[in-house]
Amino acid sequence: MSDDRILITYLLTPSPGERAEDRARAIALEQTVELPEGCYPQRIRDSIVGRVENVERAGGARWRVTISYPSSLAGTEAPQLLNLLFGNISMQQGIVVEDVDLPERVLAGYAGPRFGIDGVRVACGDVRGRPLLCSAAKPVGLTPEELAERCGALARGGADIVKDDHGVMNQEPAPFRERVARCQEAVLRANAGTGGHTLYFPNVAAPRSQLEERVAVAREAGCEGVLVSPFLMGLDVLPALAASSGLILLAHPTFSGALSQPGHGLTPSFLFGRLLRILGADAVIYVNAGGRFPVSVEECSRINQRLREPWSRIRPALPVAGGGVDAASVPSWIERYGSDIMFLVGSSLYATDDLEGATRALATTLERQASV
Amino acid sequence: MSDDRILITYLLTPSPGERAEDRARAIALEQTVELPEGCYPQRIRDSIVGRVENVERAGGARWRVTISYPSSLAGTEAPQLLNLLFGNISMQQGIVVEDVDLPERVLAGYAGPRFGIDGVRVACGDVRGRPLLCSAAKPVGLTPEELAERCGALARGGADIVKDDHGVMNQEPAPFRERVARCQEAVLRANAGTGGHTLYFPNVAAPRSQLEERVAVAREAGCEGVLVSPFLMGLDVLPALAASSGLILLAHPTFSGALSQPGHGLTPSFLFGRLLRILGADAVIYVNAGGRFPVSVEECSRINQRLREPWSRIRPALPVAGGGVDAASVPSWIERYGSDIMFLVGSSLYATDDLEGATRALATTLERQASV
Repeated sequence: MSDDRILITYLLTPSPGERAEDRARAIALEQTVELPEGCYPQRIRDSIVGRVENVERAGGARWRVTISYPSSLAGTEAPQLLNLLFGNISMQQGIVVEDVDLPERVLAGYAGPRFGIDGVRVACGDVRGRPLLCSAAKPVGLTPEELAERCGALARGGADIVKDDHGVMNQEPAPFRERVARCQEAVLRANAGTGGHTLYFPNVAAPRSQLEERVAVAREAGCEGVLVSPFLMGLDVLPALAASSGLILLAHPTFSGALSQPGHGLTPSFLFGRLLRILGADAVIYVNAGGRFPVSVEECSRINQRLREPWSRIRPALPVAGGGVDAASVPSWIERYGSDIMFLVGSSLYATDDLEGATRALATTLERQASV
Repeated sequence: MSDDRILITYLLTPSPGERAEDRARAIALEQTVELPEGCYPQRIRDSIVGRVENVERAGGARWRVTISYPSSLAGTEAPQLLNLLFGNISMQQGIVVEDVDLPERVLAGYAGPRFGIDGVRVACGDVRGRPLLCSAAKPVGLTPEELAERCGALARGGADIVKDDHGVMNQEPAPFRERVARCQEAVLRANAGTGGHTLYFPNVAAPRSQLEERVAVAREAGCEGVLVSPFLMGLDVLPALAASSGLILLAHPTFSGALSQPGHGLTPSFLFGRLLRILGADAVIYVNAGGRFPVSVEECSRINQRLREPWSRIRPALPVAGGGVDAASVPSWIERYGSDIMFLVGSSLYATDDLEGATRALATTLERQASV
């Protein structure tokens, strides 16, 4: 097989009575010519239709199938790649895209993270040897002043990054422009007091026509990064912002979940660990095991691995474990996940009467890691 | 309850041992404050947190739950609405968004289809009283000349709209600019011969930075509409193009499927019938029952109804039944769905040795509907 082909490994659950080989062949057609056998020239059959490379049992009713596709189908454009990965087959059932091997010819289209793990650490004051701490100013419905007060408390407590809650966008109680000014001001004031380097990342989720303006507002306010929700805004927003914004991109998983359901979809380790990384996220929030969302710790470890491991010339991106990470559980997660990670902790800090104090306690726990 | 609230009806499958009421309350928190009870001011509890309005059994292990939210959470911006509809809860399981009642204050943010059913009929030569016929130039891998030849055959046969296949974007064998020129030319030549009004809609799926240029190329070539894949490119691409392109938008469902799986997601009738309509699709392709994708005929009828029915000042959009509609089955679908529809027929025309003749036969069947 040529090095120039895209290899996709699927976990299939064939319908009752359906042969795994037939299902595999149907996918190879659906994702390419979208026509029955024989309704296209022989040349297309040889050069374009996916080739079923391997079919094997994967336990229970599941089969692991590998299909290869010519790299020209994806070329170097993200919508082509996404369509090849999970276009029409998304509308079927029982298909999990487990992993994808992209040849250099396809990877060449993706610059990946502009800052990556190292760039995020440098921006946070060249923090080394310990996990980073992220929290959010919340909830939606507060005024800019109230959100800024929480930003200040989190910054004084020693959070490395304070982000807008992902649901805080441009609602009446706290319009974007005013909120960014107040929150950034509060974080800078806190830094001036503590000598710290906390960064404030505003949420730039916006209608397409307003995105550029919001990013400009964030940059002009002095923010060094932004929160982006690529599943809400279109995955292709990441390469666009990575190329043009000059800002660190922290990706939020909202609206992603239907894409990675257990029996059908893209695995979290592929979606968060590979796809968001090549698309240009510098730090990737995923929902951690043991929180409010159903995901296994093994899968989370795979996400961490995918984001960190060497991969062509694509910079590593920082894993961000969130979605119900309790402050008290952080030490055990560090033991499992290591130090090259950021923890997104919200509720358990807010549940105390002392946001600043609870943040400081957690930050101190993380600091101790640096000297272990 | 105020007229100013967003009402969302969910079908829930609670986890074993979980009360439906508790699950409903958890959703009301997750989709708003994203904090446990008590970790936010009383004012926010009263004004922002979703209110569980109704909980009732829906058969089997399912419950129908209605939660209302203040319209300010969605405001008039699409990313805010999408996040409220299925943001963080997308990452959970057993939640189907069945229907949504949007107050005028939210609808005011959406212009809806610029052309709608009537505009599409006018553009196709003021076709009245019969369903429209759409087909695709395919497969990917052909040269611009070969695709243009198929466009010509489909146009001479009497298709109303000939679109690019959704997987044909900007790959090496048929780069966008050259393909659009050849295909549009072939359709215009066919029209000159037949006196017909066939339209060619190129597929503008593109990296964000190139979208505007592709739309301009299509417009300058004289195309009156384009194929758009909002699930690949971000749903918000529809209002952006509806406002700026001046072109008819034909929406393709590729990459949508994970969003509407049977036990978790947005129902097809909401996703295709309501959401794409307010976002500005003039014609909406959905996968029809009886084809290659699992969907019920009742749900397809509901999509048709949602797209056509009066809804505030939002124009009706044209339902487009596709995804394996066989030419031979079209008369029975007309009986069921009525005439205000477009059929997207591909494979069964290509499976004959005579693309033009097969198209003509189907077009004649549809013509006869006009005089029934």
